[in-house]
Order: sequence, then structure tokens, then C-alpha cells
Amino acid sequence: MLVPVILSGGAGTRLWPVSREGHPKPFIRLADGQSLFQKTALRARKVADTLMVVTNREYYFRSRDDLAAQQLDARYLLEPFGRNTAPAILLAALAAEDAWGSDACLLVLPADHLIEGEEAFREAVNKAEALARDGFLVTFGVMPTHAHTGYGYIQQGEALGEGYRVQAFREKPEQAVADRYLAEGGYLWNSGMFCFTAGHILSAFRTLQPALFEKAEACHRASPEAKALSGAVEIDACHFEACEDISIDYALFEQAANVAVVPARFSWSDIGAWDAMAALGQPDASANRFEGEVINVDSHGCYVRAEDRLVAAVGVEDLVIVDTPDALLVARKDKVQAVKSVVAELKARKHDAYRLHATVHRPWGTYTVLEEGRQYKIKRIVVKQGASLSLQMHHHRSEHWIVVSGMARIVNGETETLLRPNESTYIAAGHQHRLENPGVLPLVMIEVQSGEYLGEDDIVRFADNYGRQ
Amino acid sequence: MLVPVILSGGAGTRLWPVSREGHPKPFIRLADGQSLFQKTALRARKVADTLMVVTNREYYFRSRDDLAAQQLDARYLLEPFGRNTAPAILLAALAAEDAWGSDACLLVLPADHLIEGEEAFREAVNKAEALARDGFLVTFGVMPTHAHTGYGYIQQGEALGEGYRVQAFREKPEQAVADRYLAEGGYLWNSGMFCFTAGHILSAFRTLQPALFEKAEACHRASPEAKALSGAVEIDACHFEACEDISIDYALFEQAANVAVVPARFSWSDIGAWDAMAALGQPDASANRFEGEVINVDSHGCYVRAEDRLVAAVGVEDLVIVDTPDALLVARKDKVQAVKSVVAELKARKHDAYRLHATVHRPWGTYTVLEEGRQYKIKRIVVKQGASLSLQMHHHRSEHWIVVSGMARIVNGETETLLRPNESTYIAAGHQHRLENPGVLPLVMIEVQSGEYLGEDDIVRFADNYGRQ
Repeated sequence: MLVPVILSGGAGTRLWPVSREGHPKPFIRLADGQSLFQKTALRARKVADTLMVVTNREYYFRSRDDLAAQQLDARYLLEPFGRNTAPAILLAALAAEDAWGSDACLLVLPADHLIEGEEAFREAVNKAEALARDGFLVTFGVMPTHAHTGYGYIQQGEALGEGYRVQAFREKPEQAVADRYLAEGGYLWNSGMFCFTAGHILSAFRTLQPALFEKAEACHRASPEAKALSGAVEIDACHFEACEDISIDYALFEQAANVAVVPARFSWSDIGAWDAMAALGQPDASANRFEGEVINVDSHGCYVRAEDRLVAAVGVEDLVIVDTPDALLVARKDKVQAVKSVVAELKARKHDAYRLHATVHRPWGTYTVLEEGRQYKIKRIVVKQGASLSLQMHHHRSEHWIVVSGMARIVNGETETLLRPNESTYIAAGHQHRLENPGVLPLVMIEVQSGEYLGEDDIVRFADNYGRQ
Repeated sequence: MLVPVILSGGAGTRLWPVSREGHPKPFIRLADGQSLFQKTALRARKVADTLMVVTNREYYFRSRDDLAAQQLDARYLLEPFGRNTAPAILLAALAAEDAWGSDACLLVLPADHLIEGEEAFREAVNKAEALARDGFLVTFGVMPTHAHTGYGYIQQGEALGEGYRVQAFREKPEQAVADRYLAEGGYLWNSGMFCFTAGHILSAFRTLQPALFEKAEACHRASPEAKALSGAVEIDACHFEACEDISIDYALFEQAANVAVVPARFSWSDIGAWDAMAALGQPDASANRFEGEVINVDSHGCYVRAEDRLVAAVGVEDLVIVDTPDALLVARKDKVQAVKSVVAELKARKHDAYRLHATVHRPWGTYTVLEEGRQYKIKRIVVKQGASLSLQMHHHRSEHWIVVSGMARIVNGETETLLRPNESTYIAAGHQHRLENPGVLPLVMIEVQSGEYLGEDDIVRFADNYGRQ
């Protein structure tokens, strides 16, 4: 039994303004329309029949929607907050042992890496699984293509047939050291992908991290399957907080004796920043890569991602231009690491653009703020087929609703009505109301809010299908 | 009697995306909030008590609003289409002669130049007026600050006390020639500003361009004051088309004997492209100039104009970044002349972004398209105090109106209602309706259109306060 465990965290601040705190890197879509998370899940399901996802509670509905769009589902372990990789993997191993016994073999995959080469991936996984069944804790090492200073390195030791013993883990090196690793050979990039059986990894934790193991076991017992969310376990926050915030590399791999590495022959990228995104896809004759509506006059080596506006690039070179509805990035391609400073600055200014996109995902669909003015706000609301917002009330705002496509069922105080396209209704402040899409097509609605205060926190929920307060 | 005549045309395609065909260069606002047209009018009214504006009919309401915002008004000559400077100035001279006699002295000023130095401007105008009263046709020559190849040059001749006779007009020179002009001295940039009495310029036209003069006189007689537009003359299209499309430089100045030049000691710029705009205002310590919300990480020498979104510039140099709601320009500062190629490309693609902004000015106020989707369109409509849209009907669309501030009077079929903020109404397709702002504050309204066809041309007008069909 092979159980892929997708670790889906990582804000990806260097990919702002497409990644935001509320829309992290795994959900970024590539030019083909698939998100990194979807790609990871599809890849995993080609080598296994099941799927486990460890992610933040806040990303549950988003993750489920992403998988459903690819006809996939998964078991979820939902974290109340990030606690690094060791507690996440430990809890996943405990869950896998419960479900499939200690022989279940875990394949740990970060959700935000891009891998190309299906056959090479399958081959590497097969080798890793064979070593894992022999009792090894297996890492995947990526063959370096250049002397990168941003990754940790794994030094190969004795050959094991399917791979190598790990001689040593090496921290992110200085440039000269990275050059030497590349020249000497036998050093691989540490990919953050792992393979081991539930039994062996749990026994390693028990031996090398007994305190963490004990706390994680308590946390596991205190975290039953969530009633409101199908197929998901909500990790108990109190017990989870007691677990040490530590990576599995530090907690186990750098100490354990039975550690192996499988060299990966597939192409791999962690899409760390916009230069990596810019390197995907076929460039035009001037080495430009354009997504969206772009007019180019004598520009070279540029990556432009235009989401919904026209972008004109005139006589510029080696730029990354990333345009989103509420924020724009223009950066030199070799300075894109510094994008994280922009996010830090936005966070310091308490600017919404580090946290949210103009379009916000909810369990029932999405809303997009089209305009905010003095005492009014306009949203486009899209409600999924069969979905329903909570029964709610606002103290300070009235809402005008106009259906533009699909069908709406509206509870407003004592009355219930069906609205068709081009029909409208009015919800006065203080009135209990609920919006549902009873149809089989998405419901698209325009909401004009009017009132003295229009914050999202002016909401009293009386009943919610998604367990929200 | 000194009569400033502001020639307000010129699309300014190199200032796209802020300038558009429907929002030309004179209406571009600088960092202080004033448009170039307003600045020109304010400057003119400091040296004279009246004002005449020659502009396209389409820009009449926009021009009047711009002047009203500065407590100014003007007589207007409204062109049905552009016909170069000679016919425009000839018609202005005929109108001035009618109004004030042939001694009226015309001061011709392009609407889209930026001039700094009020006292130097007044001094130059005084000198020009004195020469004009002595029978000269006077041009203003700008002291070159560098060997510019984009302007025509005027070679000074014999001194005339207040100025110089013009020895020769020189076409836009090659670089080597421009260098020589600058080194030798006695060459001035041709500013496109002129001064002459109505009597002298008309007599020069009669002598040197008899055919044009005759056609312009016929056009003048055929163009009475417009009834629907106060203080404006609508130039008759048929007669105007008969006038030759020719500049006053070619038609008169290069042939007339009594031509003088007054050297201008004020600072002058025709704001030909974004590099000129970028040179205005005080730079920061890294030679950047930012308007709007900008986050900078290690960028130098950049000009950023951010209208309503956040712009982050990371590690870039000498760029012009101009962001508008529907289009973005990123250009190298020394390549901004090529912006006109972007506009040409947009025009070839029949893309709306060469013609219109997201916000469109109308006689009664503005509308802004907030979103267009399948079978719906959302607009924010702002109606000026006391203004009224036409009594109209649409065949293919219904409209939902929600007032967010101010007061609306709405005629819908047989009924008339007043709407306050947070009130709404519905106009069904096929219903005659009219929207007015009866109040003393601007009316802000959200309109959600719904229908199979949502083009602006689906409108039947029954009555209009602004003479539109």
C-alpha cells in the first residue's frame, strides 16, 4: 500500500502578487490552467490509489474544489496553524497506521513543486518504496543542473542497489562550496520529498524524538474525524501547539542511521520565485514569455503575466511584469528574490494586498469586490451548484441583489423567493437572510451593499452548512 | 483688446494609456490635479479678460467642465473634425473681428504645452502684442536647452527692439544640424504660439491664401451660434471640409514678409512623451518620481504613475510605469517615443483601449464600466448637480438602478419617482425613461444592465438637453 501525503503549506511570498496569504503558492495556476497542487495530486494518483493531504484548515474547501475539478478526492489532515514538517508527517503516519497498518508506505510530496517526466518519477518512487520496505528512511535527491546556493545538499555514500546511503546532509552552501559540489559530483539537491513505511518512521520518531512522539500521539487521539467536513480530520489546536515546531530533516534525517537517497532523474523545480515561473513554457523569438493580452514593442527576455488588463511593454529587457486586479509587480528578473521585501512592507503597512486577492474563495463559491466607495461596496458573487451561504444578518448594511445568471433561492425574513436572471431583491439591515443556488448551473449575482459600515465582520451567522461561526 | 485663442486638439498618442482618442492630451492631469488645458486657460486669463477656445465638438462639455472647475468660461469654436491650424486660426480671427473689430489682438496658444514663469510669459506677450500692433505676425521662439531634433527652428534676423525679424524657418533638423544651431546661437525652437491682430492676419490670408480665405469666410457665415450650446459656435461641417488642411506655418509664416519672433524666457515643454512627464516634479534620493501607491525596493530613475492600484517596483532602472484601470504601460525611459506604435497596434486590432478610458465623460457627468460579463454590465454613473440624461429607451437591455449617494428623479414610463441613497428601481427593456439629479450634490448610482445585447448604440433618444440625437 503506497499512500502519497501531500504537504500543502507555504505562502510563497516571493510569488506575490499572485500568491497571497489567503491564496498561497500551491493554488497558483500555470499557463495550462492547472494549479501546482492539482499537478502534485494528479502525479501522486498515477503511482497510488489513495491520497492524503495535510493543509491548513482555511484551505480545506479550496483544496477539495481543486481536486474535485480533476475528479480526485483525498483524506485531509487539517492544521489549525503551521507547525513545520515533523509534526505534520508524524500525524499523517499515525493516521496511515490506523487506516492501513504499519506496512503502509508513505510518499511525502510538497504541494508546490513542479516535476516533469512521469516515467522517471514512477521509477524513482518504485526504488524509494523498495528501500523503504527494507527499513530505510528515503529522501529524493535532485541531480544539480548548476551550482545553486538556495538548496540544501545531500552527499551520497555507499551504493544500495536502488539508491545510496546518505553520507551527510549539507546546509545551503556558499557559492564556492556549491561550485565544488557540482565539480566533484555525488552531491544532490535536497528536494523535500520522502518515502518510508509508517512503522519505520514512527519507530524512528519514538527513538529519536520521544517527547514529540508522545505529544503527537496525544494530539492524534484528541483529533477525531470532523463531523461537518467529510473525509477530514481537524487537528486539535491545543495539543498541536504542544508539538515542537521542527522540520523532519532536523528531527530525524540528520540523526537516523538508516537514511538513503534515491537520485531523481525527472526535471524538478520548487518554483521559488518569478524567475523560475518565467523559465516555464516556450519563449518567443525575442526570449519573451507572455500570458494574457500583451503588446510588445522591442522588448526582450521578459515574462509578462497579464490577468485581465492589457499590458504594453516598450523597449524593456529582462523584466518580470505580473499584473493582478489590485496589484502590479515590475521587477528585474535577477532581483526577484527581493519580492519578499514587498510583502514584508505590505504586511507592515497592514495593506490588504498581502493577504487577499480581489477574488476571495469561500466554501460555497467566490466573491469579488468590484468597487468600494463611500458607504457602498459592489461584489460579484458566484455560488456553486447546490451550495448555500449561511443564514445570516448584518447590523449596518442593506444589500441589493441582482441575478445575472443561474437561479437563486432567497430566504428574506419570513418569505422565500426564487430569482431568475434579471430579477432583483433587497435585504434590509437587521433582516435574517440566506442565499442558495438550487440549480445545476453556477449562480452569478451582483450585490450592492449600502450602509455606514461595510466590513466583512458585520455578520451574525445563525446556521451554516460549513461549520463556520 | 487681447484675445487668447486656445487651440485644443492633439490626441497625444505617445502619452497613452493616460491619453486616449476620447480623452486627449489637453485633459491629462498633472500631479497637482490640474489639466494642461486648465493651466493654459489660467495662464491666458492672467494676461487678458476674455478667452476663445477652438476644439472638437466632442470635447465641448469636457472643456466647459474643466474651465468651470477653475471659475473660467470661454467662447467656443467647435470643429466637426480636425483641419490643422490655418483654418482654425482663420475662423477664430473672423469671429474676433466680428466681436471686437480688426484691432483685436489674437494670442494663439496650444492647449497642451506646459509653461512655467508667469512674469516671463507676461513680458513675452507684451512684447509680442507691441510688435503685432506694428503690423507684424509674431511667433514665440523658445531658447533651446539642448540640440533637440524633434522641433522646427526659427533663425533670428534683424533686431526689432521687442524681438527680431525672422530670417528663416528651419524644418526639424538632423542631429549634426541641431548641434550646429545650438553652438552658433540665434536659433530658437518654434513653439507653435503666435500673436497678431485680427486685421493683419486676415489681410495676410486674403493676400497669400485667397482660396482658403474665401472658403473660410463662407464657412464663417454658415456657422451661427449654436442654439443648444451656450456661448459656442458649431462650425459647419460641409463648408469646413472645403477648407484646405494646412498649418499656419506653411500657409502664412514661411511666406509673409512681416514676420517677427519674440524669444521666450519662460520654461517651456510640449510634454511630447512620458520622458517629459517624468521630468516634472521633485525626484527622491534615487531619482525616482512616484504618483499614487508605490512600493519601491532598490529601483532607480523610475517614473511611476499609479492611478488606483498598488504598484511594486523591484530592482528596476530608468523605467516609465503608467498604470490605468484597463491598461498598463511599462517602457524604458529612452524608448518612450515608441509608445505611438502601441496605439497604432491597438487601433489595428480595433481594441477599445486606444479610444476610451474605463471612465467616459458625458455632458451630464461620467460613467465608469466596472465590469462586463456575459449578458450583464455594471456601471457607476455620476450625474452632476441639476443635470439630466436624455429621455431614452433601450430595445435589448433592462437596467437596475441603485442610488448610493445624492438624490435621483426617475421618469419610468408614466411614473415619476424620487430615489434616495439605498433605494433602487428597475427599468424594463422597451420602457421610456429619464434620469435626473434634481439635488445640489452629485448623484452616484450603480447600474446593472442585463440583456442579450449591451452595446452603447442600443439607445433611442426622445429628448436631450445637450442637443444629441
